[in-house]
Amino acid sequence: MKFGEQNRTIRLGIIGMGGRGFGQTETLLDMPDVEIRAICDVYQDRVENGIKLVKERRGTECFGTLNYRELNRLPELDAVVIMTDWTTHIRIAIDAMRCGKDAAIEVGPASSVQECWDLVHAQEETGRVFMFLENCCYEDQHLTLLNMVQKGVFGELVFCAGGYQHDLRDEIGNGDIYRHYRQDNFLHRNGEIYPTHEVGPLSKLLRINRGNRMLSLTAMSSKSVGLHQWFLTHRSDRPDLGTARVTQGDIAAVLIRCAGGELISLTHDCTLPRPYDQNFRVQGEKGVWREAGHVICIENNSPPDEYGENQYEPDSRLFTQYRHPMWKAYEEFGLRGDHGGLDYLTLRAFVEVVQKQAQSPIDVYDAAAWMAVGCLSEESIALGGTPVAIPDFTNGRWMTRKADKPSWYALDGVYPEEFEDLSSNS
Amino acid sequence: MKFGEQNRTIRLGIIGMGGRGFGQTETLLDMPDVEIRAICDVYQDRVENGIKLVKERRGTECFGTLNYRELNRLPELDAVVIMTDWTTHIRIAIDAMRCGKDAAIEVGPASSVQECWDLVHAQEETGRVFMFLENCCYEDQHLTLLNMVQKGVFGELVFCAGGYQHDLRDEIGNGDIYRHYRQDNFLHRNGEIYPTHEVGPLSKLLRINRGNRMLSLTAMSSKSVGLHQWFLTHRSDRPDLGTARVTQGDIAAVLIRCAGGELISLTHDCTLPRPYDQNFRVQGEKGVWREAGHVICIENNSPPDEYGENQYEPDSRLFTQYRHPMWKAYEEFGLRGDHGGLDYLTLRAFVEVVQKQAQSPIDVYDAAAWMAVGCLSEESIALGGTPVAIPDFTNGRWMTRKADKPSWYALDGVYPEEFEDLSSNS
Repeated sequence: MKFGEQNRTIRLGIIGMGGRGFGQTETLLDMPDVEIRAICDVYQDRVENGIKLVKERRGTECFGTLNYRELNRLPELDAVVIMTDWTTHIRIAIDAMRCGKDAAIEVGPASSVQECWDLVHAQEETGRVFMFLENCCYEDQHLTLLNMVQKGVFGELVFCAGGYQHDLRDEIGNGDIYRHYRQDNFLHRNGEIYPTHEVGPLSKLLRINRGNRMLSLTAMSSKSVGLHQWFLTHRSDRPDLGTARVTQGDIAAVLIRCAGGELISLTHDCTLPRPYDQNFRVQGEKGVWREAGHVICIENNSPPDEYGENQYEPDSRLFTQYRHPMWKAYEEFGLRGDHGGLDYLTLRAFVEVVQKQAQSPIDVYDAAAWMAVGCLSEESIALGGTPVAIPDFTNGRWMTRKADKPSWYALDGVYPEEFEDLSSNS
Repeated sequence: MKFGEQNRTIRLGIIGMGGRGFGQTETLLDMPDVEIRAICDVYQDRVENGIKLVKERRGTECFGTLNYRELNRLPELDAVVIMTDWTTHIRIAIDAMRCGKDAAIEVGPASSVQECWDLVHAQEETGRVFMFLENCCYEDQHLTLLNMVQKGVFGELVFCAGGYQHDLRDEIGNGDIYRHYRQDNFLHRNGEIYPTHEVGPLSKLLRINRGNRMLSLTAMSSKSVGLHQWFLTHRSDRPDLGTARVTQGDIAAVLIRCAGGELISLTHDCTLPRPYDQNFRVQGEKGVWREAGHVICIENNSPPDEYGENQYEPDSRLFTQYRHPMWKAYEEFGLRGDHGGLDYLTLRAFVEVVQKQAQSPIDVYDAAAWMAVGCLSEESIALGGTPVAIPDFTNGRWMTRKADKPSWYALDGVYPEEFEDLSSNS
């Protein structure tokens, strides 16, 4: 494995220097073969913070601008990393690719199916590398599950579930103070508006866009109680927030039917008091794994109870046995970056596919399908739970699509020959 | 409290003497103020087994018949307990009430919304006591949760979830041998076809039919993999089962929207290898309880983590504090009957409401609404996840309904004066 390997230096522009953009830029600056050449944000102080960071870490000057179009047109850049608010990721990425730049975007929901198509068309027409920075796909446990699924531990997959269950009342409720976009989204939208942390890794297990696809979804949401209560008790400075109608239901739930007959269940839960929890579940013909309590039961593998019946065991035994070689190698190299090392791994995947012009492990079709769950769930909820179709953004190629330029970071089980240990049995 | 109290003797007829009927009859025979006077089943050997059981336990003779209409017309009976297959519960109960008998039925899904209306009309027109024997409503943990909800521990409820997640491949797959009806249902239907163990107790928490109601549902199901595989490996004697098309998806999922804005999520999962698990969750403005791992987090009550953030604690502390007085009294009396004592408690509720002609704690409106989730989920799945309306079987009375003859077994928070400790704070 090649963690720490130096490749040709690439020159990046960063668009979006809020808290997330700043942290990701720090992680990118840990890579000697990456140069940060330009910074863009809509706030001048953030641009200056970014320039200062690069100066401190590298001693180099950085171009700064408030206009992403200007940054996208800088001829010296190889690629841009876009970490703006949810509603601008796609339009900025389209502009970047049309300016001849490879592009990566942070996660979030789409606002319309059309903007997903526009993104797909821009990538197809320009041929640029595009990557969706869904760090959850690179989680230790998801890579392990991917390995287990690819080795048939669960047999034929039948059902997957996950939830974005994260008490974000402070971030949302103080969004106007923090200059954070979530508040606007929670005051105006109602849906599974942050689907990709769950539908992303689950789609990799289910081979979405690579032999499978999501066909349709239906969604319902609960009333909205939590954020209103929070405004009343925490924002006496803004009585208008206390009387505002919060449209986003506390809980939004989505059911997705796949072409292969699998069912996916998603839950969005961000405005009630609770511990963080993704509530993942992976279930197939041979058994079930449940994140709550970290337990697994695989028939004829997990030890049965005293009556010979299936019972859960801690997932540690099988997770150790099937740990993904990529994560093992990463641990030997040393985890770095935020979110327990995920961010480095995800950004490194982008950097290396740009360097090698390899297949993007989370490509434009993945981004379009996953992000579309955001706006489509809003549509279904607005229509009282009516099912809505999820477009086939590959236009039929999902049936036979394979990676044609495999990379170490691939998530589809297709790796370069030198990494073939990935496909051997544990 | 009155466990063990003897009231006027009631004379019961039993319809349905399969495994479940036999066990429930044994439990009823533990009650000195209950006489079993008649037994009916479609199989003669089961009728004889029932008669023999009563003879052994009580020394009395019992009338036996293969025809439920004959049993329902016996003038000496006060009430009948119906424990037949899912598709006959309702029609037999209607006939019983029209013959002037109080009636209780075992759980299961309805086959049509119309039969639910027919049941409601029969009860309203005859005025007989009707009870739906949903034993899960009387579980220790559900009574505790009910007490917690009624005392405001969760604040305003927002979301509830539960699942019938029970590996029944043996019972279903050998149904033809066991003379069990599940096989026919799994070969022909596709839905949440056993909803009441979850929607029942959750409806009690949500005051369904007593200030709230279920408005609509949407459902989706996965492909069917598990039962087909099981037939192939376990029923070489019946190759027709191995080639049969199993219609019931391994996983069926339902989302229900309530008039109060609450969301309910149900999961049906009976044909894949797995441990038994109901995966309950109760969530409100103040916190969340999760059955998986038996954890709870109530803001400003559960101890926060070292950073002051909400975290789960084992549910034992709050469950001990809020344990329902009915279960405490039952434990002092001594648990009896199957399912950890639930069956005795549920049957005893029926016996006592018959004796006292009190309000049924799980009445015809509850039965109709909960059972209808079965056929309505089939309709929604057949329509590709289209939402379907859940009828208001109370015809508007749900807005203001209260128990008018409260009993100890009530599940709506309305108890007789002598049990007022139930409504005081723990």
